[in-house]
Amino acid sequence: MDSQTQPDGTLTFDECWELLANDTVGRLAVVVDGHPEIFPINYVVHRRSIAFRTAGVTKLWSALSERPAALEIDGYDPHTEEAWSVVLRGDTQVIEDQADKDAVDSLGLEPWQPGEKANYIRLSGRALTGRRFKVNRPDVWATRVQDKRRASFE
Amino acid sequence: MDSQTQPDGTLTFDECWELLANDTVGRLAVVVDGHPEIFPINYVVHRRSIAFRTAGVTKLWSALSERPAALEIDGYDPHTEEAWSVVLRGDTQVIEDQADKDAVDSLGLEPWQPGEKANYIRLSGRALTGRRFKVNRPDVWATRVQDKRRASFE
Repeated sequence: MDSQTQPDGTLTFDECWELLANDTVGRLAVVVDGHPEIFPINYVVHRRSIAFRTAGVTKLWSALSERPAALEIDGYDPHTEEAWSVVLRGDTQVIEDQADKDAVDSLGLEPWQPGEKANYIRLSGRALTGRRFKVNRPDVWATRVQDKRRASFE
Repeated sequence: MDSQTQPDGTLTFDECWELLANDTVGRLAVVVDGHPEIFPINYVVHRRSIAFRTAGVTKLWSALSERPAALEIDGYDPHTEEAWSVVLRGDTQVIEDQADKDAVDSLGLEPWQPGEKANYIRLSGRALTGRRFKVNRPDVWATRVQDKRRASFE
């Protein structure tokens, strides 16, 4: 695939992965009892999938095992004055292998809130899409810092 | 309901609405063909519900009529060094009344991308929850500007 953004703003696969790798905070959507749920997570990219940690006592936890999910990230590029959004759709699975857990931890994954987050979840993508577009009022975007520091949500 | 944040970080109803009113960018989750979808929207608070505009030609559009949806916003408060997250869960409905559309426009709702966003959607909440919590590394949050300017996503 061409690594250049398409004229219509569609991002390439490689661009999407680069944006995912450069961010660490996203919002995950899952379906619980037929209703959409959404919550922010801190994540790392591991083996071209998304890994994150969660506590195991919530209703959401049961929704995170082998279930369809979508992760969205977005931001603004002051150089091009364009906003962007990337969505990874796929299925979650529990990471059981300790070596994989260690690898994820070594990538700097931190829990959002203090407290035990014993479960490691992987979101393996079936579809990855992204787009970049001019915004109507670029001036109001300029202060939205898109650096690593913003990434410490979790 | 007490207007003070509870000791466990649970936000009151009024606090949640205040945070919703002070932001204008959220991520909306809906269910399409049994799978979760998530995308950023620009919204306004109108009559204690969320209103936003969307184009009418997408698959998402059909998912936005009379469907369960969840809107999430989050941010960081540098004064308290706490992060927060608010989720409004409910059902969408199409705004048909022109007076309501005008009222929504008068609140400053702008389309995210240039182009026609002819459809007005309301998310009426059935459940509103929020929480506030200390983050592990408050230093990395401090640059995430939570002012009105960030709100011009759409």
